[in-house]
Amino acid sequence: MKLPQEVYDIAEAIKSMTIRGAGKIARSTAEALKITAQKSTATRVEEFVDELTLAAKILYETRPTAVSLPNALRYIMIRCYSDYEKGASLEEIRNDVIKAADEFIRNSLEAVNKIAEFGSMRIENGDVVMTHCHSSTAIAVLKRAWDEGKRFTVISTETRPRFQGRITASILASYGIPVKMIVDSAARFFMQDVDKVIVGADAVAANGAVVNKIGTSMIALAAHEARVNFFVAAETCKFSPESMLGGLITIEFRDPTEVVDQAFLKENPGIEVLNPAFDVTPAAYIDIIFTEKGAIPPQAAILILREEYGWFTKAPLPDFLRGVRSVPLSHIS
Amino acid sequence: MKLPQEVYDIAEAIKSMTIRGAGKIARSTAEALKITAQKSTATRVEEFVDELTLAAKILYETRPTAVSLPNALRYIMIRCYSDYEKGASLEEIRNDVIKAADEFIRNSLEAVNKIAEFGSMRIENGDVVMTHCHSSTAIAVLKRAWDEGKRFTVISTETRPRFQGRITASILASYGIPVKMIVDSAARFFMQDVDKVIVGADAVAANGAVVNKIGTSMIALAAHEARVNFFVAAETCKFSPESMLGGLITIEFRDPTEVVDQAFLKENPGIEVLNPAFDVTPAAYIDIIFTEKGAIPPQAAILILREEYGWFTKAPLPDFLRGVRSVPLSHIS
Amino acid sequence: MKLPQEVYDIAEAIKSMTIRGAGKIARSTAEALKITAQKSTATRVEEFVDELTLAAKILYETRPTAVSLPNALRYIMIRCYSDYEKGASLEEIRNDVIKAADEFIRNSLEAVNKIAEFGSMRIENGDVVMTHCHSSTAIAVLKRAWDEGKRFTVISTETRPRFQGRITASILASYGIPVKMIVDSAARFFMQDVDKVIVGADAVAANGAVVNKIGTSMIALAAHEARVNFFVAAETCKFSPESMLGGLITIEFRDPTEVVDQAFLKENPGIEVLNPAFDVTPAAYIDIIFTEKGAIPPQAAILILREEYGWFTKAPLPDFLRGVRSVPLSHIS
Amino acid sequence: MKLPQEVYDIAEAIKSMTIRGAGKIARSTAEALKITAQKSTATRVEEFVDELTLAAKILYETRPTAVSLPNALRYIMIRCYSDYEKGASLEEIRNDVIKAADEFIRNSLEAVNKIAEFGSMRIENGDVVMTHCHSSTAIAVLKRAWDEGKRFTVISTETRPRFQGRITASILASYGIPVKMIVDSAARFFMQDVDKVIVGADAVAANGAVVNKIGTSMIALAAHEARVNFFVAAETCKFSPESMLGGLITIEFRDPTEVVDQAFLKENPGIEVLNPAFDVTPAAYIDIIFTEKGAIPPQAAILILREEYGWFTKAPLPDFLRGVRSVPLSHIS
Amino acid sequence: MKLPQEVYDIAEAIKSMTIRGAGKIARSTAEALKITAQKSTATRVEEFVDELTLAAKILYETRPTAVSLPNALRYIMIRCYSDYEKGASLEEIRNDVIKAADEFIRNSLEAVNKIAEFGSMRIENGDVVMTHCHSSTAIAVLKRAWDEGKRFTVISTETRPRFQGRITASILASYGIPVKMIVDSAARFFMQDVDKVIVGADAVAANGAVVNKIGTSMIALAAHEARVNFFVAAETCKFSPESMLGGLITIEFRDPTEVVDQAFLKENPGIEVLNPAFDVTPAAYIDIIFTEKGAIPPQAAILILREEYGWFTKAPLPDFLRGVRSVPLSHIS
Amino acid sequence: MKLPQEVYDIAEAIKSMTIRGAGKIARSTAEALKITAQKSTATRVEEFVDELTLAAKILYETRPTAVSLPNALRYIMIRCYSDYEKGASLEEIRNDVIKAADEFIRNSLEAVNKIAEFGSMRIENGDVVMTHCHSSTAIAVLKRAWDEGKRFTVISTETRPRFQGRITASILASYGIPVKMIVDSAARFFMQDVDKVIVGADAVAANGAVVNKIGTSMIALAAHEARVNFFVAAETCKFSPESMLGGLITIEFRDPTEVVDQAFLKENPGIEVLNPAFDVTPAAYIDIIFTEKGAIPPQAAILILREEYGWFTKAPLPDFLRGVRSVPLSHIS
Repeated sequence: MKLPQEVYDIAEAIKSMTIRGAGKIARSTAEALKITAQKSTATRVEEFVDELTLAAKILYETRPTAVSLPNALRYIMIRCYSDYEKGASLEEIRNDVIKAADEFIRNSLEAVNKIAEFGSMRIENGDVVMTHCHSSTAIAVLKRAWDEGKRFTVISTETRPRFQGRITASILASYGIPVKMIVDSAARFFMQDVDKVIVGADAVAANGAVVNKIGTSMIALAAHEARVNFFVAAETCKFSPESMLGGLITIEFRDPTEVVDQAFLKENPGIEVLNPAFDVTPAAYIDIIFTEKGAIPPQAAILILREEYGWFTKAPLPDFLRGVRSVPLSHIS
Repeated sequence: MKLPQEVYDIAEAIKSMTIRGAGKIARSTAEALKITAQKSTATRVEEFVDELTLAAKILYETRPTAVSLPNALRYIMIRCYSDYEKGASLEEIRNDVIKAADEFIRNSLEAVNKIAEFGSMRIENGDVVMTHCHSSTAIAVLKRAWDEGKRFTVISTETRPRFQGRITASILASYGIPVKMIVDSAARFFMQDVDKVIVGADAVAANGAVVNKIGTSMIALAAHEARVNFFVAAETCKFSPESMLGGLITIEFRDPTEVVDQAFLKENPGIEVLNPAFDVTPAAYIDIIFTEKGAIPPQAAILILREEYGWFTKAPLPDFLRGVRSVPLSHIS
Repeated sequence: MKLPQEVYDIAEAIKSMTIRGAGKIARSTAEALKITAQKSTATRVEEFVDELTLAAKILYETRPTAVSLPNALRYIMIRCYSDYEKGASLEEIRNDVIKAADEFIRNSLEAVNKIAEFGSMRIENGDVVMTHCHSSTAIAVLKRAWDEGKRFTVISTETRPRFQGRITASILASYGIPVKMIVDSAARFFMQDVDKVIVGADAVAANGAVVNKIGTSMIALAAHEARVNFFVAAETCKFSPESMLGGLITIEFRDPTEVVDQAFLKENPGIEVLNPAFDVTPAAYIDIIFTEKGAIPPQAAILILREEYGWFTKAPLPDFLRGVRSVPLSHIS
Repeated sequence: MKLPQEVYDIAEAIKSMTIRGAGKIARSTAEALKITAQKSTATRVEEFVDELTLAAKILYETRPTAVSLPNALRYIMIRCYSDYEKGASLEEIRNDVIKAADEFIRNSLEAVNKIAEFGSMRIENGDVVMTHCHSSTAIAVLKRAWDEGKRFTVISTETRPRFQGRITASILASYGIPVKMIVDSAARFFMQDVDKVIVGADAVAANGAVVNKIGTSMIALAAHEARVNFFVAAETCKFSPESMLGGLITIEFRDPTEVVDQAFLKENPGIEVLNPAFDVTPAAYIDIIFTEKGAIPPQAAILILREEYGWFTKAPLPDFLRGVRSVPLSHIS
Repeated sequence: MKLPQEVYDIAEAIKSMTIRGAGKIARSTAEALKITAQKSTATRVEEFVDELTLAAKILYETRPTAVSLPNALRYIMIRCYSDYEKGASLEEIRNDVIKAADEFIRNSLEAVNKIAEFGSMRIENGDVVMTHCHSSTAIAVLKRAWDEGKRFTVISTETRPRFQGRITASILASYGIPVKMIVDSAARFFMQDVDKVIVGADAVAANGAVVNKIGTSMIALAAHEARVNFFVAAETCKFSPESMLGGLITIEFRDPTEVVDQAFLKENPGIEVLNPAFDVTPAAYIDIIFTEKGAIPPQAAILILREEYGWFTKAPLPDFLRGVRSVPLSHIS
Repeated sequence: MKLPQEVYDIAEAIKSMTIRGAGKIARSTAEALKITAQKSTATRVEEFVDELTLAAKILYETRPTAVSLPNALRYIMIRCYSDYEKGASLEEIRNDVIKAADEFIRNSLEAVNKIAEFGSMRIENGDVVMTHCHSSTAIAVLKRAWDEGKRFTVISTETRPRFQGRITASILASYGIPVKMIVDSAARFFMQDVDKVIVGADAVAANGAVVNKIGTSMIALAAHEARVNFFVAAETCKFSPESMLGGLITIEFRDPTEVVDQAFLKENPGIEVLNPAFDVTPAAYIDIIFTEKGAIPPQAAILILREEYGWFTKAPLPDFLRGVRSVPLSHIS
C-alpha cells in the first residue's frame, strides 16, 4: 500500500522536530490525512479506510507522547470509521474526511486568537501578572491586552533548567511590556504583589489537572495560598481523552546535562540528577482555563472532552488511538 | 583611645570575608572583645567600658546586616553594662567580660554538635530527606545520622542562582550518602516521596518565622501541603532580638549578574532582574527548630530570645546594639 | 420601522424601574418580543428579522448591566436567527419566536416554585438557617419548608448599607418563622450555631462564582471555615453567558450617601467612602446552587450555560448581544 | 391485572435479600420488566403500560432506599412512557422496553470490568493502597492491577461494626496480594505511607458527594490532609437522580446490637448506641470517580445524571419514581 | 473601716464611665490603692492589709467585666500579700505597695508609646492598611508611622452598630492620612489590595486568642485567606490571667436599640435582635501582638501572663481577684 | 548495696502492673525514693547518692517506655545531684530528697482536681461533648462540670481495639450524664453536632504534639475541619523532656490478637495485622491543654518543660535518665 509522498515528508518533519509546537504538529497531521484522502486511488471502501489508517499509524508513531497529534488523528478518523460503520460510500467518506481535516485546521488556527480575546478580558490596568516558562498562547493573551491599551507589568520566572523564561521575557519586552525576571524559587516571595498568574499547558486531564513545565504546580500552590487567580491558556487539542479512561499522563524525564554539565556528573558519581520536564497542577488550584470554546472552570474539562470525542470508550477507533501509553514514571497531583 | 591590634585585624578579616560563616564571625567577635578586656590598661571603670564599647562599635560596623555578630556583642556587653550599672569594680567587669566571651565561644563551638545530636534522632532508616541550599548545620545533622548507621537518601535542590545545592550534594555524596539532585521548582513534584525536609537558617524572628535562602518558603509550603515534617537547624546566635521590637529583617537584593550575564542585560534593557537572596518561612509551616538548647516549636523562639537578652527593651545596651536597621525592601511572611 | 407601542412602553417601564426584579424584567422583555412578532406587518423575512432585532436593541439598552434581560433576548433571538439562517419562512419564524417567548415566560414563572421545592428539601426540623440581604427566591425556599411543617429558626443579617436584611426579617416573621437579626459582622460569631446558609444571587459566572450583595463572600468563607453548607438559590436566567467568553462581571459602586450622610462627607473631605454593591463568592465555598433545572454543584454552571446558549461563541447573535460589557472596576474571587 | 410469576419471585428474592448487591438487584429488576413485556397478553397500549407500571411499583417497594433498583426502573420506564406519549404502537413499546432492559443488563455486566480497566491504570508498582469496607468494584480494580503484574501492598481497615474489611482482606490475600489490616481509627497513622486510597460507593449525589460505609469521609479527610489521591469506584447505576431535585440521601441507622450485645444495653440503660451505616464524603476530597463511562472528577457526576435521565424534572415518570424519599435522619457533608 | 475619700470618688468615676478606656481605668485604680496606702492610719499590719483589700474590692466591683482593672489590682495586691506572708513590717508593705502602684502607672503610660514604636516599624511606604473599630493604640501605631514620614493609605470599616470606625477615620484624616471608609462586610472585597491589618484588643487570652469588637474575627479570617498579615496592638494590662485557669471571657450582649430603633422592635415582635459586642479571633489568624514588652507571636501570651502573675494558681490573692466571672453566654474561637 | 525492701516491692508492683495509671506509677516511684532516703544508713555522701541512683535505676527499668515514671525520678534526682554538686551534706541532701518526693506526690494528687476545675469552666449548658478512649482526667473534667449543675450530653467512641470507650460510657452514665456511643469512624458524621472534644494524653511532646490512643488525631482533624474546639487534659508529669532533645516518642505496636483472634490469623497467613496503640496529634489541631498549672496553648508545652527541668541538656542527670529510648517504629505528626 503506497501513501502520497507528502505523508512521509510530514511524518519525517514531525519526527525530526522541523515541525514543532502543539498547534503546528496537529495541523500538519490533519493536512497529511487530508492529502491521503484526496490523492487516494483506492476503489474499494475497505482499501480507502486501510490507507487512511496506515497514514494515521505512521503519523502517530512519530511522537507517541504528544497530546495534540493523536487528537488531530482522532478528530478526523472518528468520522471516517463512523461513516464506514454506517455503510457510507467511498466518496462520502472521502468528503467527510477532507471536511473534518479542514475544520480541524481552521479551528486550530483560530484557537489562539480566541483564547487571546477571552483571556485578555481578565487583564486590567495596573495588574502585576506572573508567568512561567514559555507559552505562545499565554503570550498571545498578554500581547492582546497590551495592544488594547491596558498597562500592566509582567513577572517572568527564568524557568530552569532550560531558561525558557528568558525567551518569554525578551518577547514581552520587545512589545514594550515592562518585565521583571526572577529565579523560579522567588515566586512565593513576589506573590504578595501579584494580581494574577497565567501559564500555558502541555496537556489537560479529564479531571481538570494541568500538565505543564516543571514548577508550575508550585507557583499555583503559592497563588492559591495568597488568593491570587491562576489562569491556564490551553487550546482544546491539548485535552487528553485517554485520561478519561484512567490513563496517567507520562511525565518525561529529560537528560541530566540540561541541569549540570558532563564534568559535574563525572566528578560526582554519587549524585543522580533527576530532571522531570513537567509537573501536574490539580484543578483545585486553577481558577479558569481559557480555551477557544470559552473560559471554563477546570472541572469542565471533561465536558469539552465528551463533546469532542463522545464517551471515549465508545468511539470507533483502532487500539493504537485509544490505548493508553505506557507510563515509565508518572505523578498525578 | 587605642585598642589592641588584634581587634582591628579581626574586624578587617570579617569585613573582607576572610572570616565568614555565622558561627565563625560570632566567635571571632567574642574573641576580639575578650582580648580588649584582657589587654586593657584602663585604670578607671568608665575608661574600660568606653574601650569595650569602641571595640564593639568597630566590630559591629563590619557587617551591619549579619545576625550572629551583634548577638555576640550583646551577649557580652549586656554583662559589661549591667556590672557597670551595679557599680562593679574594673576587675569584676573584666572578669565577667572574659568569662562571658569564653562562655559564648564554648557554647557556639558545641552548638553544631548538639544540633546534630538532636536533629539526627529524627532521621530514620529508609527516609528520603529533602534539603535546600547549603547549610553546614543541616549537613551536620545528616552526617551524624549516617555515621550512626542510619541509611537514607537525600534530595538536594540545585539552589539557583548560585547553585549552592551542588556543594551540598557533593559533600553529602563524599560521605557516601546517596544524593539525588533536582532543579528548585521540582520540589513539589518529588514531595510525595519525601519523609522530611531539613534546612538551615540565616535568621530566626521572634514570631518563629525563619529567614533562609530564597525558595525555602516554597518548599516549606509544599511540605505543609503534603503533611511532610519541615525541620530547621539553627544555632541560637541566629535568633534576632531586634525582631522582638517589631523590626523587620532586611532581605538583601543581590546583583542581577548572579542570575543572567551582562550580555543579556544589555540586549534586554526592558527586563529588570530582581534577585532577593532570602525569603521568610512562616512559623505555621515549621514543625521543629533544632537549636543547641533543644528541639523547639517555632513559637518558642521568643522564649529563647527572652532568656538570652531579657525583654530586649530593658537590656542596658547602647543604641547601635538595640537599634533596628533600616529596611530598604523587606517581606515578612 | 415602527414597532408596536407596547414595546416602547415596556422599555420605558424597565428603564424607570417601574418594572423591576430579575424575573419580572426578563418576562416583560420576552413579552415585548412576542408582541413584536405577533403584530408585525412585515412581508419579507428580512424585514421581520430587522424589526425583532430593533426591538431587542431598544430593550437591551434600557438596563445594559442587568443579567436576566439580555438572557431573555438571547433565548428568543437565537431561535429567530437560527431559523433565518436555515431559510425558514416568515410564518415559521414568527411561530418559533412566539413559542420561544411563551416557553421562556412559563419557565421563568415556574422557576421560583421549582427552586422552592428543591431547596426546601434541604431544610430540616431544628435547623438554624442564616441568610443575608433580601432574596425573594431564598425566602420562597424558607417559606415552602415552613409551610410543609418544618420548624426552624432564621438568622438574618441587617445587610448594610441599605438594611435589606430588615425587610427579609420582617417578611419571615410575618410567616411566623422565628427570626434573629444581627449586624453583618456578627456572622462568624453565630456561625457555630448555624446548620446551613442560603442566599440569592445577582449573577452566576461560568466558573460557578456567584455575584451577590456585598458581604456574601465573607459569610461563605465563615461557613466554609466551620464546615457549614452554603446554598445559593438562583434562576438560570441569572447565569451569565458572557462570562464564558472571559468577561468579568461589573461590580457597581453605589453612592457614598448610602453609607454616610452628606454632612459627614463635607466635614471629612479627607475620607473617601467606597460603596461596592456586590462581591464575588468563589465556587469552592458553595455547596449547591438551586436552579429550576435541579440542584447543581457550582462547577456545573457552565453545563447550564452551554445547554441554554450552546457554546456562546457560535450562537448566531448580533454583537450587542454577545459583546462583553465594559468593566470600570471589577473583582473576581 | 396479573403479572408473570417471575416478577413476584424476583421481587420476593430482592426483599428477602436472596438477591443482593447493587448490580445484581438492578439487573434482576431489569429482567423482571423485560419478562413482563415479553409475556404480556395486553391488547391495548394503555393496558400494556399499566402492567409495566404495576411491575415497576411492586419492584420499587421491595427496597425503597436502594439507589440502583429505581435507576433500573427509570432507565427502562422512561423509554416506555416516552413512546406512549409519542403515540407508539404496543409492539413498538414492547420492543423498546425489551431493548432497554437488555441494554441496561449488558451495560451493568460490563461496568465492573470497565471500571477495573480504568482504575487499574492508576495502580503502580510499589504502591501502598488503602481501602475501607468491602467493595467488589474496588476489589476488581486491585485484582486487575495485580493480574497485570503490578506489585503493591494493600492496607485494609477492619471496618466496624460489621468487620467487612476482614472479608476484603481475606479475598485480596487469596489473590496473593500482600495485605495489612488495621483498626479504622489507625487510618491517619498510616496515611503517611499510603500512595492512594480506593473505595466503593453506595450512592453518588448530583454534587459529587459520595455516600459510602461509615468512616469513609474520615479517611478521605486524612488523605486530603496528606495530599494522597482518593479514588472512588462506582457504577453509574449508583448515581442518584433524586439528588438533582435537592433530595437528601437517607442515612440508615442500623441496630445497636451490631455495635454492642444485648447484655451491654441492658446493663447500661443510660447509654444510647447510634449506628449510622454510611457517611458522606464531599467532592472536594475526591480526586476521581471511576465509572464504566470513564474516569470523572466528582463534579461531573451531574453530567452523567443528565445524560442518563435528562433534566430529571422533565422525565415522563410516575411520582413514585421521581419522588424523593422521606428522610428520617440525614447528613450531607 | 474608713478609706480615703479619693478611693470612693475614683470608684464612682469608673462606675459612671467618667473615667474610661482600659489604660485610664487601670491607672486610676492603681492611684486609688496608692492613696489608700499613703493615707492609711492603720497601726497593725493586718489592719493595713484589710484596708487595702477593702479598697481593692470596692474598685473591683465597679466594672466586674473589665480586664485591665483587676489586672491593676492584682499587680499591686500580689506584692502586698506576698510581703504579708513573709512577715514584712507595715512600713515595708506600704512602701512596696506605693512602689508597685507607681511602677504600674509608669509602665501603663509608656505602653502605648512603646507599642507605637514597635508597630510602626511594620508600616512601609505604599502600604494599604486596614483597621476596624476605634482603637487608640492602633491609631498611635499609624500616627507614629505617618510622623516618621511613611506614606500609606488606611481602609477603615464603619464598624456597626455604633459606627466607631467613623471616629477612627476622622482622626486619621485629621492627621492627613488618606482614609477610605467601607461597610464592614466589604472587608473581603478589598482584602486583595490590603498589605496588612491592624486592630486593638479588649482582652487577650492565655492561648493567644484576642477578644475585640464584633467583626474582628471575620476580617482576620479574610486576611488569613489572602495571606495578609494581621497585627494586634495591645498593652499587657489587657491580658487575662483568669483565662489561664480555663475561664472563658464573657462576651457582652448589648442593647438591641444600638442596632434598630424602638419602633422597629415594636412593629416586629417576632424578630429578636442579638447584639454581641465582641468576638474572638483565634491565635492561628494573628501574626503578631504588639505589646509594650515587644512584638510577640500570639502563642507567647502565656509567657507574658506567667511573668506578670506567676502561675496564677499559686498567686496569693483573695478569691474575688482570682475567681472566674460567671459566663452567661460566651464564645471562644 | 542493699535498698529497703519497699523499693523492690514497689518496683515489682509496677512491673506486674499491680500499680498502674500514669499518676499512681509516678507517685509510687516518688514514694520509693523517699523511703530509700529515709531508711538509708549510708555514712558518706557518695554512698548515699549511689543508693538513690541504684533505686532510681531499678525503678526506671520496670517500665522503660512510660513517661510519668522517669519524670518522677528526674524531679527528685535533679535536686539530689544538684545538692551533691554544690557540696551539700548528707543530711541536707536527704532532707531535700524527702521534700522533693513529698512535693511531687502532693502536686500529683492535686493535679487531677486542678485540671477538673480549669477544664469544667469550658463546659456549658446544652453542650455536646465528644470524647475518645478512657481518660480518668477527662472524665474528672466532665464529672466536675456535671456536679456543678451543668447539663450536657457526651458522645463516646467505642475505641477499638480494646473498647475502652465502653468503660468511659458506663462511668459517665453511672453519674447520670446522658451518653451516646458510636463506632470510632462515625466521629466525623456526628462532628457537626459537637460543641467541643476533650481527651486525655499518654504523653505531650516539647512541640505541643500530643500522644494519645490511636484514633485521637483523626478526631482532632475532624474537629479542626468543623471549627470545633479540641481540648486535652494532661497532668504535667505526662510532658516528655526527652522530646526537647529531639527524641521521638515510641509508638508501641501491640499484639494482633487485640484486633482479631488466633483463628483468623491462622486462616489468613497473608494478612499482617498492625496494631499501633497511639497516634500523634499535632499542636495545630489542639486549642488548649488543661494542666494543673493552668490552661495552656499546646505551643507552651516547652515552657512547662523548661520550668520543671531547666534546659534539659544541662540538668545534672545520669545517662539513663537523659537518654532517649530506642525507637523501633515511630511517627510524629
